[in-house]
Order: sequence, then structure tokens, then C-alpha cells
Amino acid sequence: MTNSTPRPLARPAESAVAAVIEGLTQRFGNRVVTSDAVRWQHGHTLTWVPNQPPDAVVFPRTTEEVADIVRLCAAHRVPVIPFGTGTSLEGHVNAPFGGISVDTSQMKRIIAVHAEDLDAVVEPGVTRKELNEHLRDQGLFFPIDPGADASIGGMAATRASGTNAVRYGTMKDNVLALTVVMPDGSVVKTASRAKKTSAGYDLTRLIVGSEGTLGIITEITLRLSGIPEAVSAGICPFPSVRAACDAVIMTIQSGLPVARIELLDEVMMRGVNLHSKLGLPETPMLFLEFHGTEAGVKEQAERFGEIAAEFGGGPFDWATKAEDRTRLWQARHDAYWAALALRPGVQSVATDVCVPISRLADCLDETKRDIEAAGLVAPIAGHVGDGNFHTQPLVDMNNPEEVERCKAFIDRLVKRALAMEGTCTGEHGVGQKKMQYLEAEHGAATLDVMRTLKRAIDPLNIMNPGKIVAL
Amino acid sequence: MTNSTPRPLARPAESAVAAVIEGLTQRFGNRVVTSDAVRWQHGHTLTWVPNQPPDAVVFPRTTEEVADIVRLCAAHRVPVIPFGTGTSLEGHVNAPFGGISVDTSQMKRIIAVHAEDLDAVVEPGVTRKELNEHLRDQGLFFPIDPGADASIGGMAATRASGTNAVRYGTMKDNVLALTVVMPDGSVVKTASRAKKTSAGYDLTRLIVGSEGTLGIITEITLRLSGIPEAVSAGICPFPSVRAACDAVIMTIQSGLPVARIELLDEVMMRGVNLHSKLGLPETPMLFLEFHGTEAGVKEQAERFGEIAAEFGGGPFDWATKAEDRTRLWQARHDAYWAALALRPGVQSVATDVCVPISRLADCLDETKRDIEAAGLVAPIAGHVGDGNFHTQPLVDMNNPEEVERCKAFIDRLVKRALAMEGTCTGEHGVGQKKMQYLEAEHGAATLDVMRTLKRAIDPLNIMNPGKIVAL
Repeated sequence: MTNSTPRPLARPAESAVAAVIEGLTQRFGNRVVTSDAVRWQHGHTLTWVPNQPPDAVVFPRTTEEVADIVRLCAAHRVPVIPFGTGTSLEGHVNAPFGGISVDTSQMKRIIAVHAEDLDAVVEPGVTRKELNEHLRDQGLFFPIDPGADASIGGMAATRASGTNAVRYGTMKDNVLALTVVMPDGSVVKTASRAKKTSAGYDLTRLIVGSEGTLGIITEITLRLSGIPEAVSAGICPFPSVRAACDAVIMTIQSGLPVARIELLDEVMMRGVNLHSKLGLPETPMLFLEFHGTEAGVKEQAERFGEIAAEFGGGPFDWATKAEDRTRLWQARHDAYWAALALRPGVQSVATDVCVPISRLADCLDETKRDIEAAGLVAPIAGHVGDGNFHTQPLVDMNNPEEVERCKAFIDRLVKRALAMEGTCTGEHGVGQKKMQYLEAEHGAATLDVMRTLKRAIDPLNIMNPGKIVAL
Repeated sequence: MTNSTPRPLARPAESAVAAVIEGLTQRFGNRVVTSDAVRWQHGHTLTWVPNQPPDAVVFPRTTEEVADIVRLCAAHRVPVIPFGTGTSLEGHVNAPFGGISVDTSQMKRIIAVHAEDLDAVVEPGVTRKELNEHLRDQGLFFPIDPGADASIGGMAATRASGTNAVRYGTMKDNVLALTVVMPDGSVVKTASRAKKTSAGYDLTRLIVGSEGTLGIITEITLRLSGIPEAVSAGICPFPSVRAACDAVIMTIQSGLPVARIELLDEVMMRGVNLHSKLGLPETPMLFLEFHGTEAGVKEQAERFGEIAAEFGGGPFDWATKAEDRTRLWQARHDAYWAALALRPGVQSVATDVCVPISRLADCLDETKRDIEAAGLVAPIAGHVGDGNFHTQPLVDMNNPEEVERCKAFIDRLVKRALAMEGTCTGEHGVGQKKMQYLEAEHGAATLDVMRTLKRAIDPLNIMNPGKIVAL
């Protein structure tokens, strides 16, 4: 590979930024905003990384407008930071070198739904809930569901997933094609609408998860799924996190096509009870959902009940009534807010790791002991069918000692996951917070290939600089 | 992007090739072969492209040996052409500029099977059947099944798929991580064993389908599946290709989790009868397989029977007995040979395209009319659940007029698929034969990004030069 020493990047000259803002204002009028409130909102993070606001925010409406913005920024070497709904958790939208935040929230068209092909073409500002609202009448849905009502563009950029990934995959598996404005302003279409292809390099997957560092996504062709004929859902308490994990492994191994299988630890369950007033047992709990035919989901639920009992879990309480399911899954989806109920008034620093499922119980056990030893309040929720879990330390940001304790805990958590053949992030992405772990995870040679790609695609280093490989 | 004019590549100097062969012989002894027979075997194609043999073939046994080969070739700027089992169909292993064919057939270790994690780590020379033989006792299988007993390395390199893709995905979905020797001889590991990750650029998917043009795959971590508890399979005749396609669309839309749904047209069915002596009706036929529980596969088969009847198909004759299933699927897997039975003594020029499933009936109808008008014998078999189909014109290579007629037909076939928002290849790969269509499929800007990647990763252009983007 080429020389891998990261090139230093400084803020562009004030005059360059001023020229870009002037050019943008001529072109976009009041869709260019430089007010402090909007700038700070676009640079926020949900981490301990300080807010680093962009110099301006622009709200394009078309691919061509995005291309014009990028060309103007490239001409003046001013950074471009793509922005969806701002719900990313690891510091993706911060602007450490200033520049222009490109907010795609006005790109909200659902361009096409091809029901026979089970695909849809959308603009990046459409959120997952908006899309599912639109699809419902056609018996279709888009299964990827990160906690927040994120934008489809942001979800593609961060390779998001969620509770359905164990059955339906992640954004990597559900994006068929992208339209991308590249760092030189050229517009590329990464693939056709065909369900599979072997026609050259997989640019779709190169852009998915690139966090805006290789280009701005302006159109997404998504794979859809049919709303299942029947759904059953339920919760199942376990005597320990390990017993729950063992039941999960057996469930996956036995080929039960579970649609969702989520673990909440007893700390998180306490938060759920505080937040959602469900009065559930405060013990490690699996939340499950099965999709299929009436007979199929009944059979799946019964099988799972037998597996749970083998590991001391149960009773498995399951329901096929939509309102009961909704209540349960609302509680699961509200876990982020439920966690906050455990320690009102402080900030939550959510993070995630992912390990091979055979190591999940070890990783969770060690992590829970670590949390206790560190004196932190940090509930755990996991997409355990994939070996992926989140913890959400609740931290008083005004207490520097506590912040340091939290940082040290997350550092140990990541190193623990890596030592177990895992990854520093299963679905949140790298952002600013996980950059420091990429070399430990991938090794120097692999990171060097990533840098080579970044340099080749974005030689001016204007696309979300200071993220992922941070040239 | 950077300047996209392809750089001409000439054969390296005789002295450079001689130096490499001498260096390899010192290092590898009789594992370096320069005999005509072996060289020609490694440059074969199953197309009309003439055989372009490499200058020598080397048989490494470890990643380090592959790295040494690549470093030596890089030092002398001699091309490196990776070789698996040589079963690719579009001219992937030809050596248009000479160089060294790196035959991975002695890299056959199954390094690990992690049953709890449903993954395995294998060397590239392991074939899919060898792997499945090894896995059987553990109740696991690897679902990707291109027609040939291809090597796992070759399957990853060409982004192969097969009959199970509609349920289990393609190599893109079933490769978790790769070890790759890069064009400078560095060794990279693309990912961990975690089931999902958002930790940086997706190098796994960049290498999958890169056809040896970005590096040589020396280790593959594969996602495995549990052997289903029950399997049912059957065949269902239809009055027309269009009726069969309509039944397929309805099957997929209704969420029936079909494991395989394959179409053979009446011409291919004639070949199947000649080859396998099955005495089946010579009419468009769907071959199906369902995976699940005993009750589940019965339910799926019954539902499919109802759908087929709606479109005038049937009777749907299905069986759960293993020997009956094996006989049926053997006939399907032998389609390549069955086709040859239609016109003994000539060559088959197999190719594939893939379109959105809503366009499949149109694409097939037009293609069948085209075959007839062109006076060709070209049976059709398709992985129709994905909109992917193959045709296999049987061509007398000694008749230049007939070869030209076949080329013109394939040209029209590809352009038809592209006009229907499809791809020039769903699973065969680009090789030498589909390169000419990449610009029509992707557009100049997208192809330019592919060239930029190739140049960045392989600046000396030694990795399988003359393929995909052909700098």
C-alpha cells in the first residue's frame, strides 16, 4: 500500500469558508443557516466528545443541489458533513474542522415502491417510520429498526441494524443500490434494481457504513419484506444472563427462524418498569417475536418455550394479539429512555459491541462484573441473536472523575470484545468515539487499505474529515 | 475522480518472467509447473475467448507462500492470476498478458468449525461439496451451490450464488471475513468473526466479487446454516413461462420462505429427459424446495400448490422422501450437462443475467422469441426467485457464422436485461466476456470509481490484469 501516515488536517482558511457560505447563500437563499442554535444542533454528540459545530448548515432538496454544494466545497477545500436526523450515537455529525453540514431532511420523497419486486426507492431524509407508514397499505414493511426514528440515508451511512437483524439482516443486506454524490461532485449509481449481481466491485457495500467519508447518499433503493401473515411475541425470564444466552444459542442453532430475540438485563428491566409501568419481573429477560403463518408462529413459540425450559427459563408468556405485542415492543424500544429513568438528570453514553455468540455469555458476565466494580449504573440491552449488545452508562457529565471512570469502562468493554474475536461496534458505527480502536480490531495493514481507499476516493479529504480513518 | 483513461498493459519483458519463474522454482521446487498441458489447463475458458495460458503455474500451501509469490511478481511487475477449480464461465482465469497462475488447490484445510456460532474458517481450495461433507455430522451446511463443485475461494472471488440464494443469499451474504494477500504482498484480515459490524469500510464485500483483481483470498470465514429438520421438494408444470413467473412472484410476495424455486423451460426439460431419463413433461417447470419443521414444510408445499393452481400450473407433485428429492435436484443440478445432450458434440456457452422479478416474464418471453428467431438451440434455467436466469446456447465453434450469431444473441440478451433495470450478470461474474457491458450498466462515473479503486489498491496493475475494469 501507499504511505499510511495520516495527513494532518487543519481548519480551512476563514476566507475559504466565507466564500463557500456566500456561494451557497446565492444559490440556496434562506436554506443556508449560520445561526448558532442550528449550527450547534448539527454538531451535537451523545458522547463526552465536545460539540464541534459546522460553520453553516444547508438544506438541499435534490441530488443536483447536493452535487453543487459538494463541488463548491471541493473548490475551496471546505469540509462537508452529511446530516440525517442527528440520532447517531458515537459522534458522527460533529465538525472538528468546521465546514458545511448538509442536512438531508428536506429530501423526503418516496420516489417509487415496486411491490412485485419488494423494493422501494427513497430519498435520504425519509425516516424509517415514515417509510413504514407509507408501505403499510401495500402489505409491505422495511424491517431495519435502530432505536431512533432515524433517516434512511443516515441508516445506510452507518450500516445500522436493530431488533429484526437476526432474521432480516442489517442495512448491508437491505440496500440494493445507492445514488451517491462523490467528493468531486460526480454522481454515481452503485447498482441496478436486480436482487443480485456479480457485475464488478460492490460499491453499494463500500458506501454503506462509510459514514459520509466517501460521499453523500442522495437516493436509496431498499429491499422490502412482506408483512407476515401472523406474528407472535412474548417475554421469557431467565435466572441468569448466561442461561438466557444459552437458550439463544440453542434457538439459533436449531434453525428456529426467530424474527427478534432481545435480551434486557435486570438493571434495564428495572428501568423499563420505572418508565413503562409494566410491573415485569426484574430479572434477565428475553423479548421474542416470531413471523410466519398462524400455525407456524404458534409452533415456533411452543418450541422456544421448550428450549427456554431446558435452561431454567420461563414461563414463556406469548401473545398474538397486536395490542399486547405493541405494548411489549414499545417497552423494548423505549429502553434508551427507560435507562435514563434509573438516574434522572444525568446523561447516558450508549455504546455497543458485538462478539461471536459462543462468547456472548462470557462477555456479558465479565462486563456486568466490571460495571459493578467500577461503581457505574449501566443497563444492558442486546440484539443477542447476533451477539450484539448495548450498554448505556448513566454519567454525570459535571463530574470529571465519573466521566473518566466511564471512559475507562468502555475502553475495557471494547478490548474485551476484541479479545473474544468481536468488533468494537456492531451497529452504531465508528464516529469519533471508536476511531481509536480500529487499529486494534483490524490490524495496521487492514487499516492501511481503508486509508488507501479514503485517499483514492476523497483526495482532498473534504468528506466528513476526522472520522473513521481520519487522514 | 482521477483520469479514467485505461492504461495500456503489455506483456512483461521475457527477462522479468524468467526471473520470477527462477525465483519461484528456488522457493517452491516442483510446485512450479511450466508444462504446456498444465499452463493451457489454467488458461481455459468456457467461452469463445481464446485460451491465453499463463507462463507458469504455482501451487502454494499457505498464506505466507502466497504473499511471497505476490511480492516476487510485484518486484518484477509480472501478472498474478488466482485459480480455484477453473469452473468459472466467463473467462476469469485466462492470462491475456501472461504471468503466474496461483492455483490454490493445495490450500485445502478446514481450519475451524464453530458450531455454536454457525461459522467455519476454511482455506480457498476447499470445494463446497468437501465442506458440506465435513459439516454433515454436525447438523450444519453451507448453502451456496453454484452448478459446479467450485472452490470456496473462487466462489468468494466471483460473488457466486446458486439455487439456495432466494432463501440463504449469495456469497456476499455468507462470507463473514477474509484473509487476503494484497497486491504488495501485505496480508490483511477484513473483519472479525462477529455476525455484524459497523467498524469501518466493508473490505469483505469489496473483495467478494473482485475476481482476483484486488488481491488473492487465502482464508474465508463463512456463515453456516443448520440442516433443516424437514425438507420437502417437488416439481410443478406450467402452461407457459409467464404463468410460472407469475406464480413465483406471488410466492415471494406472500412471504412463503421457499428455499429454492427454479425454472427450467421446455427446451431444458427435453435435455433433462435425454440426460436423466426422468420422463417428465416437456413444458415450463418449477422445481421447488421448502425447509423447516415437518408441519411447516407441509404447509408451505400446500400453499404453493394453491398459488400454482391460480396461475394454471400443476399438479404440484411433492415429496419429503430424501431419495426422491435427491433424484429431482440431481436432474436440476445436471442441467448444464443435460443441455449438452440436446446437441451432442458442440460447445455450450453458458451466460446469465438478472432483472427485477416484475420484469422476468417479459425478459424470458422476449429472449425465447429471440432464440427462435436467431435459429439457436439455447435452453434456459433460472433461479427465478431472484430474477436470475441462465441460457446456454449450444454452438458449433467450428462454424464462425454460428459463433457470431451466438455472440449477437448474448449481446441482445444483456442489453435487454439492462433496459429492464437489470444486471449483465447475476452470479457468473464479469471475467473477460462481460467487461464490455459494465459502462452501459453502471455509467461512466461509476465505472470511474471502480477504476479509481483498482488503481489505488493495485497501482502496478499486476492482479489479474485485463479483467473487470481492465486498466
